[in-house]
Amino acid sequence: MANPSLLILAGDGIGPEVMAEVKRIIGWFGEKRGVTFDLSEDLVGGAAYDVHGVPLADATMAKAQEVDAVLLGAVGGPKYDVLDFSVKPERGLLRLRKEMDLYSNLRPAQCFDALAEFSSLKREIVAGLDIMIVRELTSGVYFGEPRGIFPDNEGGRVGINTQRYTTEEIRRVARSAFELARRRNNKVCSMEKANVMESGILWREELRWVHDNEYPDVELSHMYADNGAMQLVRWPRQFDVIVTDNLFGDILSDCAAMLTGSLGMLPSASLGAPMANGRPKALYEPVHGSAPDIAGQGKANPIACILSFAMALRYSFDMGDEATRLEKAVEKVLADGIRTADLMGPEGGTPVSTSGMGDAILAAL
Amino acid sequence: MANPSLLILAGDGIGPEVMAEVKRIIGWFGEKRGVTFDLSEDLVGGAAYDVHGVPLADATMAKAQEVDAVLLGAVGGPKYDVLDFSVKPERGLLRLRKEMDLYSNLRPAQCFDALAEFSSLKREIVAGLDIMIVRELTSGVYFGEPRGIFPDNEGGRVGINTQRYTTEEIRRVARSAFELARRRNNKVCSMEKANVMESGILWREELRWVHDNEYPDVELSHMYADNGAMQLVRWPRQFDVIVTDNLFGDILSDCAAMLTGSLGMLPSASLGAPMANGRPKALYEPVHGSAPDIAGQGKANPIACILSFAMALRYSFDMGDEATRLEKAVEKVLADGIRTADLMGPEGGTPVSTSGMGDAILAAL
Ligand SMILES: CC(C)[C@H](C(=O)O)[C@@H](O)C(=O)O
Ligand SMILES: CC(C)[C@H](C(=O)O)[C@@H](O)C(=O)O
Repeated sequence: MANPSLLILAGDGIGPEVMAEVKRIIGWFGEKRGVTFDLSEDLVGGAAYDVHGVPLADATMAKAQEVDAVLLGAVGGPKYDVLDFSVKPERGLLRLRKEMDLYSNLRPAQCFDALAEFSSLKREIVAGLDIMIVRELTSGVYFGEPRGIFPDNEGGRVGINTQRYTTEEIRRVARSAFELARRRNNKVCSMEKANVMESGILWREELRWVHDNEYPDVELSHMYADNGAMQLVRWPRQFDVIVTDNLFGDILSDCAAMLTGSLGMLPSASLGAPMANGRPKALYEPVHGSAPDIAGQGKANPIACILSFAMALRYSFDMGDEATRLEKAVEKVLADGIRTADLMGPEGGTPVSTSGMGDAILAAL
Repeated sequence: MANPSLLILAGDGIGPEVMAEVKRIIGWFGEKRGVTFDLSEDLVGGAAYDVHGVPLADATMAKAQEVDAVLLGAVGGPKYDVLDFSVKPERGLLRLRKEMDLYSNLRPAQCFDALAEFSSLKREIVAGLDIMIVRELTSGVYFGEPRGIFPDNEGGRVGINTQRYTTEEIRRVARSAFELARRRNNKVCSMEKANVMESGILWREELRWVHDNEYPDVELSHMYADNGAMQLVRWPRQFDVIVTDNLFGDILSDCAAMLTGSLGMLPSASLGAPMANGRPKALYEPVHGSAPDIAGQGKANPIACILSFAMALRYSFDMGDEATRLEKAVEKVLADGIRTADLMGPEGGTPVSTSGMGDAILAAL
């Protein structure tokens, strides 16, 4: 059988630096574990714009459709702020999500014990936190039509976006959340604003339908998204899996990520329907952004990107054991007090650069 | 000159209980400070539905349009969950907001020193926190058309809502935020998703326009709403005034409220355009909900509703000194360790009922 294929899109800012460490990890798995990939690399975001005048070239898009998984670094930077909406770095990412139809975005919010002190929340609130946010990623107000800025009747302008969800769009992401819950603590909490939005009513009804007809064994609850934000802050450990739409998911998952104090540590997976070979269409990326302020200085923490590769091992390549091996190596390094700049707290530790962190993880493997 | 008029809509759940204490406070201001109001009372939410079959009767709506200010308790309860969307308790509140055109919703997120321990955040992060969230309240996805649930092309359904903002809608709430900032620390942070939504681009541009043309002396910054949620959790004291749209404001203000650990303490004001007498159309209400689980037990904390009346004194009746007097009385009571059940922490204190808290505040006045 051919090697599984992996397309690397390092992107902008700290993307290339953190991705360099991931490539070393991938190399290690090839040499030591016989887990080899067909690697290719290409441009996305501002880096693609600089060369092609668009944040994702058609040829790159085509390649992404063919590989078994895409690994992305980060996109964006101040240099591109002046660009027109249609060619901003983010559009490259959004195009990948949409055209690969990656409807299920998995965002674990996990608090690493060695790092609990970094949370702005009290240790007893966040220690041991481990929740999974499943965010719908290909629909809703991100992609709904009509959209745009138009002249209004009073000589001004009107800005319009459309929140739009169909039965099938809701059901498929619901299934993804219920499947995950079965492998975790069997609890799903769905968040919307059904008290204000009809699209939220439909969301709630379809979640209920999928639950009653296909996953009656999983516990399902519903929460308004504003209350969800409050409950995440108040007592996040009440949750196991949270499922929500594209826009609420954007905000709530960032809020949850920050609770853990481990932003530089958090990976994500964006999954679509199974391909001919049974593997889901998939893109993996760290939750953090391109951090232009520290780019090129060897300060970035590569762990979120490395753990994104671990998610690829688990969700794309059915190598849960290898994923766990990598995750355990990361935990060990943290427990040993190895720290990139973002992880340097009052407790101290051994300061390392981006590649120093890569060294430490390779050594721990 | 006639007495200023105040319409009291106690609503559902703990609404009537907390409002009873506010009425005693209002009585005190009449007797001791010569500040008398023409009071009237009416029904809203489930209480109105039970009598009229709608969550806000037309006659009540008309009355609300005539008075100088409306004071609202809370709406909603499990009994009404089965009702059709169009007559749910929340619709009464939304109708008031829309028809009174209360476009500027002021939600202070303040951490009371005596209560900092109740926050799930570390004391050093929240102590002294005092930010003001200005939420647009009459437009956006809450009211945009088209909306509804329709059959889709694949035999399923589609849920649609429309995010819609005009130049003028954005500018007026922007002005309200800049005015407030001038009386505070002169900083406004505007939050949207201009990287994804055209309505967010318009929001950003109009904020910039109002700033450059009318409030160049105020510091204006922009932040994506997902980053806003993160920054609120990470380091909330970086903010002074935050201005955002209806839906983001709903979520971010609840998140901010929960940071303070003082949910039972937080008031809000919803303001519209000036009436003939120069006073703005206004509705005041606590941020907390109707808390059906503790309704009727004398356990509810009346402070958020009492502080909402203090906001009325300040924003509707130009009685800033009287407002401060009331706020100081509340602070004194807290410093003295007087505690309703929700404020009872490990430190202990003197437990009181809803009316016991009213007694203590009256005594402190
Ligand atoms: C970069 C941006 C378009 C994106 C989003 O809004 O989805 C980001 O915030 C994310 O959550 O992945
Ligand atoms: C009750 C509900 C309709 C309301 C809203 O969503 O605006 C509430 O959450 C609020 O924030 O006042």
